[in-house]
Amino acid sequence: PPPGGYPQQDPMYGYFLQIAGQDGQIDAEELQRCLTQSGMSGSYKPFNLETCRLMIAMLDRDMSGKMGFNEFKELGMVLNGWRQNFMSVDTNRSGSVDGGELHRSLTSMGYSLSPQALNLITRRYSTHGRITFDDYITCCVKIRALTEAFRRRDVSQQGMVNFMYDDFIQCVISI
Amino acid sequence: PPPGGYPQQDPMYGYFLQIAGQDGQIDAEELQRCLTQSGMSGSYKPFNLETCRLMIAMLDRDMSGKMGFNEFKELGMVLNGWRQNFMSVDTNRSGSVDGGELHRSLTSMGYSLSPQALNLITRRYSTHGRITFDDYITCCVKIRALTEAFRRRDVSQQGMVNFMYDDFIQCVISI
Repeated sequence: PPPGGYPQQDPMYGYFLQIAGQDGQIDAEELQRCLTQSGMSGSYKPFNLETCRLMIAMLDRDMSGKMGFNEFKELGMVLNGWRQNFMSVDTNRSGSVDGGELHRSLTSMGYSLSPQALNLITRRYSTHGRITFDDYITCCVKIRALTEAFRRRDVSQQGMVNFMYDDFIQCVISI
Repeated sequence: PPPGGYPQQDPMYGYFLQIAGQDGQIDAEELQRCLTQSGMSGSYKPFNLETCRLMIAMLDRDMSGKMGFNEFKELGMVLNGWRQNFMSVDTNRSGSVDGGELHRSLTSMGYSLSPQALNLITRRYSTHGRITFDDYITCCVKIRALTEAFRRRDVSQQGMVNFMYDDFIQCVISI
């Protein structure tokens, strides 16, 4: 029986083990292969390796650089939500959205960001004013991971954190 | 005469203008082409687009997402220093270094980081325990950019910064 009591009847568990190989964990290269095979990016361009590393970092609570079965399932759900969000904005299936559409999309996810932050985000993730699906996902992964890392340190929930330099580096270097 | 009084006799200025095109600024795609052509990565694999975006963000004080002539020259010097640093550690020209070598390299650049931070950095940028030249440069760019962004906000120079959530996102989203 698998460690941690994973239900063996879960149809995804066999698939996960197949990708994970001997160590029972998925690294960034395995994740890229798997997301490409499973058609997670749909008709859009497959995710680049850097995006896959970010996805692992986003859910990697034990900082192992790898992903177990629960994180793998969580990632699947999160990605599906983002893909649907992207497709609802990219109505003509051009494969990219503009800055205003990205803003609306982030706002609908519940992020409360200033116009300055939203403009920086758009500039960072757009190419000639358009944000492709791959960059959109990278952007979503980063904002989610940064927000959660910030929240974990914001113990009084005041939206304010006092960082020492070394902790600041540790907090953001993997994201 | 060019704006900003760039010395027209600078041998690199013509080259810069050639790459920059009409807008007189270099974006990430132009930078990637230029670093590949100029052989900046030497015999190592060319830089990926994400790394080029990070390089621009590192020096992009006006947050335009593009690079002027002065930043372009500064980047050239910084990259040269890092390449020499990498080559002095990668003595057998394998194209990659290990975690201990990365630590020594970062320490020799003057970064004072805890063992925990150094381990996180290594885990983040290594593949099967090795850090390739491209990832090494990405790592150097990130640490330099994060350190400078932190320092700019650390007005009392105490190694401590109080971040509001929105400012935290603005500070790190481009890096």
